[in-house]
Amino acid sequence: MTAEIWDVIIVGAGLSGLSAAHLLRKRNAKLKILILEGKDRVGGRTVSAEIPAASGVDRWDMGGQWVGSTQTHILELIKELGLETFPQFNVGKKVHHMGGPGAKVRTYRTSIPALSPVVLMDLTQILWKIGRLCATVCVEDPSRTPNAVELDSMTLHSYIEQHAWTAELKEELGLCSRSVFGMEPSQMSFLFFLMYAAAAGGVLQLLESAPGSAQELKIKGGTQQLSQCLADRVGWKNVRLGSAVTAIWQDAEWAKVTTTTNTFLCRAVIVTSPPHLAAKIHYQPALPSQREFLTQNMPVGHMIKFIITYQTAFWKEKGFSGEIVAGSSSECPFCVTFDATSPSGNAALVGFIAAQQASRWSSEEGEERRNAVFSSLVKYLGPEAASFLHYEEKDWAKEDYSGGCPVNVMAPGLLTYYHPSLRKPCGRIHWAGTETATLWCGYMSGAVQAGQRAALEVLAELCPMALTQEEQEAMQHSQTIMGAAKQTASSKLVYQFTKKTMVIATLAIGAALLLAQNQNALLKVKTYLTKVF
Amino acid sequence: MTAEIWDVIIVGAGLSGLSAAHLLRKRNAKLKILILEGKDRVGGRTVSAEIPAASGVDRWDMGGQWVGSTQTHILELIKELGLETFPQFNVGKKVHHMGGPGAKVRTYRTSIPALSPVVLMDLTQILWKIGRLCATVCVEDPSRTPNAVELDSMTLHSYIEQHAWTAELKEELGLCSRSVFGMEPSQMSFLFFLMYAAAAGGVLQLLESAPGSAQELKIKGGTQQLSQCLADRVGWKNVRLGSAVTAIWQDAEWAKVTTTTNTFLCRAVIVTSPPHLAAKIHYQPALPSQREFLTQNMPVGHMIKFIITYQTAFWKEKGFSGEIVAGSSSECPFCVTFDATSPSGNAALVGFIAAQQASRWSSEEGEERRNAVFSSLVKYLGPEAASFLHYEEKDWAKEDYSGGCPVNVMAPGLLTYYHPSLRKPCGRIHWAGTETATLWCGYMSGAVQAGQRAALEVLAELCPMALTQEEQEAMQHSQTIMGAAKQTASSKLVYQFTKKTMVIATLAIGAALLLAQNQNALLKVKTYLTKVF
Repeated sequence: MTAEIWDVIIVGAGLSGLSAAHLLRKRNAKLKILILEGKDRVGGRTVSAEIPAASGVDRWDMGGQWVGSTQTHILELIKELGLETFPQFNVGKKVHHMGGPGAKVRTYRTSIPALSPVVLMDLTQILWKIGRLCATVCVEDPSRTPNAVELDSMTLHSYIEQHAWTAELKEELGLCSRSVFGMEPSQMSFLFFLMYAAAAGGVLQLLESAPGSAQELKIKGGTQQLSQCLADRVGWKNVRLGSAVTAIWQDAEWAKVTTTTNTFLCRAVIVTSPPHLAAKIHYQPALPSQREFLTQNMPVGHMIKFIITYQTAFWKEKGFSGEIVAGSSSECPFCVTFDATSPSGNAALVGFIAAQQASRWSSEEGEERRNAVFSSLVKYLGPEAASFLHYEEKDWAKEDYSGGCPVNVMAPGLLTYYHPSLRKPCGRIHWAGTETATLWCGYMSGAVQAGQRAALEVLAELCPMALTQEEQEAMQHSQTIMGAAKQTASSKLVYQFTKKTMVIATLAIGAALLLAQNQNALLKVKTYLTKVF
Repeated sequence: MTAEIWDVIIVGAGLSGLSAAHLLRKRNAKLKILILEGKDRVGGRTVSAEIPAASGVDRWDMGGQWVGSTQTHILELIKELGLETFPQFNVGKKVHHMGGPGAKVRTYRTSIPALSPVVLMDLTQILWKIGRLCATVCVEDPSRTPNAVELDSMTLHSYIEQHAWTAELKEELGLCSRSVFGMEPSQMSFLFFLMYAAAAGGVLQLLESAPGSAQELKIKGGTQQLSQCLADRVGWKNVRLGSAVTAIWQDAEWAKVTTTTNTFLCRAVIVTSPPHLAAKIHYQPALPSQREFLTQNMPVGHMIKFIITYQTAFWKEKGFSGEIVAGSSSECPFCVTFDATSPSGNAALVGFIAAQQASRWSSEEGEERRNAVFSSLVKYLGPEAASFLHYEEKDWAKEDYSGGCPVNVMAPGLLTYYHPSLRKPCGRIHWAGTETATLWCGYMSGAVQAGQRAALEVLAELCPMALTQEEQEAMQHSQTIMGAAKQTASSKLVYQFTKKTMVIATLAIGAALLLAQNQNALLKVKTYLTKVF
């Protein structure tokens, strides 16, 4: 068997791998680039599906779906590929049900949930504390964060237990963890959480659909198009589907990449697989033990996503936005839903069953899970929720060559002991994938950034003339430069709101709320909070 | 290529795999059993080496070395194989150096370190608290432990931060974590720590060389003999070395086990690899996602072990036991050493570089690491330490088909969400290895227990008549029965020492120590404490 020879082999035809290939080709059209993908499709954790809808059929995203206006890497790509975005619909009453099945179902209209004044104060103080810590995090090298060992030695759960005053807020933050990471707050390092938030510009940016936040915009026609369009540009002949990489061997001259049926030789490899899958590849020589310890400490989250299509968006007619937030003790399988009506007007809802709830519901029969979803929707939005056209779901834990979604988190201790191995090349192997990003890591934008960074690393090795002098310098000093820059930027933002201001604000809000418990006062406070954060 | 056909294939020729094979053969001599091992030797995490010594050459253990008199599974095996044990030498002054390079080096003779009265009180209270919690842990199903979610949502570090009063004790407990797990207290779930201690009969049992403890006895001629003797019994023709398993496929009739060169068919498979390596095997059909999430949350520890031989045991002549305990801030690479003089009288010391220190020193040049070891030994035991015969070390992170030592721990959240997958067979695949044990898990005894348990599972499937009725019943009800039994036994032990007694004892000890700070009083208190725990 003679091996095919290529310049660069990319493992994974998701956004990160295809972005890397795209940049490589733009800089040097002569480079022979091959992309090997285990799945029978491109897109990785983004996949769009045709689903029966009011007008017959329409497309929805069963994986990553949102982008935000501060996610420059993905926005530039969207523009370059000629795709269009449209805003997440969020007008109307939002449903909020925390505190167990017996608790009152509340509704609200602002971006801050329907919380009691005390819980709202609690939220204010903890967001302020976390915001301050976020501003001190060096995303490029979190071990340089002041007090890093301490922050990395506790779980997000432990931080919440120590700093949240009310049981309600603890429940609320548990839900945030589930919906953002597909993980319980017990399963990740608190420093990792801070780094993740810092890479997104703040905690609220992770949670909201407001401008600049993670759930702001969607892509017309679905996010998988990004990968499909990139494959068009890179050339489909350079993308081999159904070709899972099982081994990467290196010697002085070549890297040898093996799939179950083929062997390829190349000068450089970019591995974009999520860490738990990259760990399953057989490397020779063995990877440094620090790298092995790194991947052992990066478990992936668990999410089941569903799309339900309807004849009409009955929730809008009833004044609802489609957003439901439900605590894990409420007997409801999902933690959040949103309106998912398509740009062409086909009514739909999207929802997520995440973390511990995904574990539990994943093992149930499909029908039982579906029934539980509808019984909750009926409870929150009314009996019309039962008259659906189609229910489509995707359990990402069961997807081959993913095994989980949306992102791999970091267990306590990783950031302080093994983090340098995250992006450090191992010989001819370079690491990409959204987990290695420094801006919006864990998101599609991070996948693009990481792919482009790995591509620049490869260019620096194979054809350094393809890099601008700026890029060359940036690569050499990336950690120092980016570290300092990032820290300054986010510090500015958060430190506007100093400790003194915070104490006064909390007391003022508290007093105002306790004295005048009417909707007007509450709204004013919420508006104030929204402006402040 | 026609596949060889066997009844049972065991992945891994360590103590667990060979114990499984041995039991299978004893119960049914007709069973065709094949053991596949990636390494070029048997023994897994136990390996004995010939090292230049005073009398010419002698054997020492470079991996697992100690057994204890409550470790019934390994003791029975030792007896059956006709091997002999001898006690860990621990007579004389022990060296204790915590608090940074500038702190005073102390010595002590009892089993409780040379701590100040306040730190001793602190130790008393935290051991009491942990002991009480340990007694409530159901080792077979830790999620049934009262308050399990809370205990599993924090790291061992967080527990120590919250419950230790003094910085000295925190440092002390960090050292314990490193020397027992090769991990920092930040890297594991507190509930996992409790379960691990409960499976050993208590926390002190993990730390001491006293009767019943983990460091009590050694095996004459080395621990690898256990595996070699087992391979003799099982038949070396049934053990294939250098045969790493890369894939296990199952269909309705067969399990198909693949190495890089061969394919085998069988009725049942026992996988004994540590979880991070078991996760690298390719399974078809894919393992349940709960099992994948389990292995993603079980990182392995990092230990470098060294043996130094000397012409004479100069430390004994100077009144030292050879035991040194050194904090990580003391510029000393190792955390503990012990006397390792062989039964035939060849003088030696054994030491461990562990966890974060292993990470740091692993990347240094060998000579630099060795020099640092000797410079510390000279500081603690005198200039004679520099005149050694031979220095032999083993970095277990760099050992193929191990990648770490001594054991895989569990990250926060695992025990409450994924634990049922730890021992649950997946079709024809059964799981062994010390990590799956319920008595002395993480130890050689646990490896034997786990191997035997998996063997019984396989017998129950392939030839149930080979099981006694008792075993059949026990297997059916194992969780319930063992859970209840274990809990009662350890409860009795610990609850003798009630809360009231503890408060009085702490106060009494404190008063005594603060009033009469002389060696005699201290010794009495230590004796009291030793009796109490």
